[in-house]
Amino acid sequence: MSELRYDPIKQRWVIIASERKLRPREFAVPRQRSEDKHTADGCPFGAGNEHLTPPEILVLPPPPGSNGGRRWQVRVVPNKFPALRVEGEVVREGVGPFDRVSGVGAHEVIIETPDHQREMADLSAAELAVVFTAYRERLLDLRRDSRLRYILIFKNAGREAGASLHHPHSQLIATPIIPTFVVQELNAAQRHYSRKERCVFCDLIRQEQLLGDRIGLETEHYVAVQPFASAFPFETWILPKKHNYDLAQANDDELHGLAVIVRDLLRRLRVLLDDPPYNMVVHTAPSPHPRPGQPSFWSTIEYDFHWHLEIVPRITRIAGFEWGSGYTINPTPPEEASRFLKEADPDGGGHGELP
Amino acid sequence: MSELRYDPIKQRWVIIASERKLRPREFAVPRQRSEDKHTADGCPFGAGNEHLTPPEILVLPPPPGSNGGRRWQVRVVPNKFPALRVEGEVVREGVGPFDRVSGVGAHEVIIETPDHQREMADLSAAELAVVFTAYRERLLDLRRDSRLRYILIFKNAGREAGASLHHPHSQLIATPIIPTFVVQELNAAQRHYSRKERCVFCDLIRQEQLLGDRIGLETEHYVAVQPFASAFPFETWILPKKHNYDLAQANDDELHGLAVIVRDLLRRLRVLLDDPPYNMVVHTAPSPHPRPGQPSFWSTIEYDFHWHLEIVPRITRIAGFEWGSGYTINPTPPEEASRFLKEADPDGGGHGELP
Repeated sequence: MSELRYDPIKQRWVIIASERKLRPREFAVPRQRSEDKHTADGCPFGAGNEHLTPPEILVLPPPPGSNGGRRWQVRVVPNKFPALRVEGEVVREGVGPFDRVSGVGAHEVIIETPDHQREMADLSAAELAVVFTAYRERLLDLRRDSRLRYILIFKNAGREAGASLHHPHSQLIATPIIPTFVVQELNAAQRHYSRKERCVFCDLIRQEQLLGDRIGLETEHYVAVQPFASAFPFETWILPKKHNYDLAQANDDELHGLAVIVRDLLRRLRVLLDDPPYNMVVHTAPSPHPRPGQPSFWSTIEYDFHWHLEIVPRITRIAGFEWGSGYTINPTPPEEASRFLKEADPDGGGHGELP
Repeated sequence: MSELRYDPIKQRWVIIASERKLRPREFAVPRQRSEDKHTADGCPFGAGNEHLTPPEILVLPPPPGSNGGRRWQVRVVPNKFPALRVEGEVVREGVGPFDRVSGVGAHEVIIETPDHQREMADLSAAELAVVFTAYRERLLDLRRDSRLRYILIFKNAGREAGASLHHPHSQLIATPIIPTFVVQELNAAQRHYSRKERCVFCDLIRQEQLLGDRIGLETEHYVAVQPFASAFPFETWILPKKHNYDLAQANDDELHGLAVIVRDLLRRLRVLLDDPPYNMVVHTAPSPHPRPGQPSFWSTIEYDFHWHLEIVPRITRIAGFEWGSGYTINPTPPEEASRFLKEADPDGGGHGELP
């Protein structure tokens, strides 16, 4: 059984996934081996191999008008090697001076396409909108489970970004604790709102629109900002211009608009950075099951929080300085990254030239 | 000019090192290329190539009795491509809603040996003690600079751990702000002390000695603990048993004792994990130049803090879940790691078998 453990000195939680326990020598292999690129034949996520995954949690059909003739566009299945398990009670206990919580949660895989070789950037906007619809549906479903405090949806693309299977997929991990980084962001938004009665993200969008030099992409309903204190080169936050605290409240049109800008961004990054590994993380409202006796983020969240996606190309490394300080060293000012993104050709393929 | 920037939503600082500015396409290369393994001939850190580095800041001779006949055992030189620069005033300014601090600091390289091929684990304890002496001397010297609030000493070993040069070396980055992670640790130690009049690290050592299952190595004066909430497989904290808040206060005997246990640990990790990339970070007291008008960590630090080294083999990847949550998923419980370390043969070379 996995468990969550808390370090009171570093004030951080970790998941000790002991069911994934390995002998030390086994570690040596994956770090040498390249990402698993089985052919479509052997891929457990591909069309025709549906029997290789655990039973489906959700299946979404291809978008109307697409002529693939496939049964499904997106499938959601439980992770075969879950970090946390759905079964059981959440037990919180002290162990001497330490804290431990049983590893109850959910760990799901969102298979983004039946086609083994089509990256997220290769999907049409209509197809990508189906992926985001799956995100929304899983949020809505899992929020009914009162044991779960947060549902984190993320994507690891490429080996350096943590992907162990090549077939395009996202993941979802739901935890019985709101993760530290999420609490920090929710707290910051709540503090800003309580002082100013304004959403800090709405303020950010307005400020960046005024300055103009850190908005790499903009559509009618979204902005893609390279934030002032970008921790990594080409770090990008995609925010809806209209205030909305929760991705699960987005309607179909809004999800389609999201697909359009994400697709454009990923294609430009592919041209600029030569098909970089990247991570994508959804930042949205927590589950509506507050910790008893504590102020709930839900009391004001509708006003103070603003959902967004964060995308980080993994082209620099986390090293000793970063572990020790919490700082990162970013060699590309966000103003530069924005300029490159504006000028890039999203259809330039993997080897376009920069102006 | 580099600068430090603050993100009020994520409450994190980053260093925007614009002097290292690269065109985006240049990023594509280093992530493919393996760590630079020039021969001793071309290595800027090797014996005979001293003219390839900027002028020396510190030179320490080989330990007494060693028969290498070399002029130096350890050289400290400025980093040729510094993230922060020594020249200039620390300017703190607001930029609209954002905060910015000029990139004043220090960035030095501690060359650990003249021999290109001798990793830290290959040095004798006496030679390694010279490296730690260099750490101490640089801390003492840089603390005289009142612009600097913290001096972080760290080591990146292996490409996956962020090393760009193969020749064994540590680094030092001094910053005009105490880094977030350091502040968190100092705060936690101060809170614990203010409640209990005991050092939290002394408590931790006593607790782990009582239980015994998370101390992989122990010598007369040091313990190597795999902490309860280890974020990574084989994460290890090396702590002096005798309370001491500051590595810069350690005497020669204590530095030699540190060298003995660090060397033993690195050799066991090499056997167990097949020569893993790793990071090492020194956690010690901040510089004695408190922020005006704020309570100083120095008021109680002699009692509440306890210097230590943290060593993290880099055998798992940081992926989307970690970026989004601040959690890590650790597949090796620390109790397992301790058992493996106890049983490993430090002289087993790179390919010993486990019991």
